[in-house]
Amino acid sequence: MDEPLNLVLFSGTDDKLQAAAVLTAGAAALGKPVNVFLQYWALDAFTRAKIGLDHGLAPEAGEAGRTAVDALAKAGQASWAETLRQAKDLGTVDIQACSLSMDLLGLEESDLDPLVDGVEGVTAFYLNAGEGHVVFI
Amino acid sequence: MDEPLNLVLFSGTDDKLQAAAVLTAGAAALGKPVNVFLQYWALDAFTRAKIGLDHGLAPEAGEAGRTAVDALAKAGQASWAETLRQAKDLGTVDIQACSLSMDLLGLEESDLDPLVDGVEGVTAFYLNAGEGHVVFI
Amino acid sequence: MDEPLNLVLFSGTDDKLQAAAVLTAGAAALGKPVNVFLQYWALDAFTRAKIGLDHGLAPEAGEAGRTAVDALAKAGQASWAETLRQAKDLGTVDIQACSLSMDLLGLEESDLDPLVDGVEGVTAFYLNAGEGHVVFI
Repeated sequence: MDEPLNLVLFSGTDDKLQAAAVLTAGAAALGKPVNVFLQYWALDAFTRAKIGLDHGLAPEAGEAGRTAVDALAKAGQASWAETLRQAKDLGTVDIQACSLSMDLLGLEESDLDPLVDGVEGVTAFYLNAGEGHVVFI
Repeated sequence: MDEPLNLVLFSGTDDKLQAAAVLTAGAAALGKPVNVFLQYWALDAFTRAKIGLDHGLAPEAGEAGRTAVDALAKAGQASWAETLRQAKDLGTVDIQACSLSMDLLGLEESDLDPLVDGVEGVTAFYLNAGEGHVVFI
Repeated sequence: MDEPLNLVLFSGTDDKLQAAAVLTAGAAALGKPVNVFLQYWALDAFTRAKIGLDHGLAPEAGEAGRTAVDALAKAGQASWAETLRQAKDLGTVDIQACSLSMDLLGLEESDLDPLVDGVEGVTAFYLNAGEGHVVFI
């Protein structure tokens, strides 16, 4: 359990981000360090301007999926952002923005929510990943 | 080859589930144990009510993709569910539903197809995963 | 860093293929061998007929995403195919088409762009993967 879990987040829909948050919190609860690397639409979802908004669901969710997710939110289920904040309190979770995706989306570091710890390139991501798993979400 | 392959299935479209079934069957054929963890729309596809239905394709498949997949199905290609049943005969394949996703979709264990071996939380998934790869599909 | 990075490419949109190309190039730059296995819509994107075309973006990209990606392309950013060609010059990158997906799409080896090094089954993919990570994109 010493090697980190390394999550590359690409998708920015609320269902995939919630799945990623649950995988992060579970690893943190087990004492496993987690490195999160934000690309493309996932990075967009972590901006100050957008982190609190509705980011939609994967197209396959359909009407029934939308209803289920809305019902849980109304019942007070933690959002993926809240789940990640709790995971950071629980264990070692480092969240980095991909520098290439920052350029793509025209973002400055000050545009990012404080959940994001910094900006790095893909080579730095690999070096931090060590021998741990890499999971693309 | 002793460490398990651990597949987190999130997507519920027939093309991604077929890709996951092929990866499972290949690993089982090589004697590698496989742990499958069902979340969100993948879990929905493993319910008794829906496992036999058409689950659509990823949006990018387009018209040509739809035609290709339909042609194979008519030619008698095994469905992803059949491929997974065969993989279970061939090797060690354990399929678990994510307990959080069960709550999200309002499912009981009796709603699930017999392909599913049980329900567990993300922490149990990690403990079973050991040092094996985690792949998110 | 001796174990290969093993990427299963399933999606054929330009944003996911660019993310995969960046992960490939970064690993190659660090001297890590990369095995790429092309399934479904990713394989379709590597055909001679289609590799130079616009393959669209993930549905979640939206209008703003489309605009950002178009702006970068006009500014001369390398396409994913170019990034992969550069990665092959930089390190050891082997790109194989999944034989089952070749059948699904009705493709011959001569239909594939020269970036693709050959066709293999999933068992051969696992045997080449060794103890390295498997990442599904």
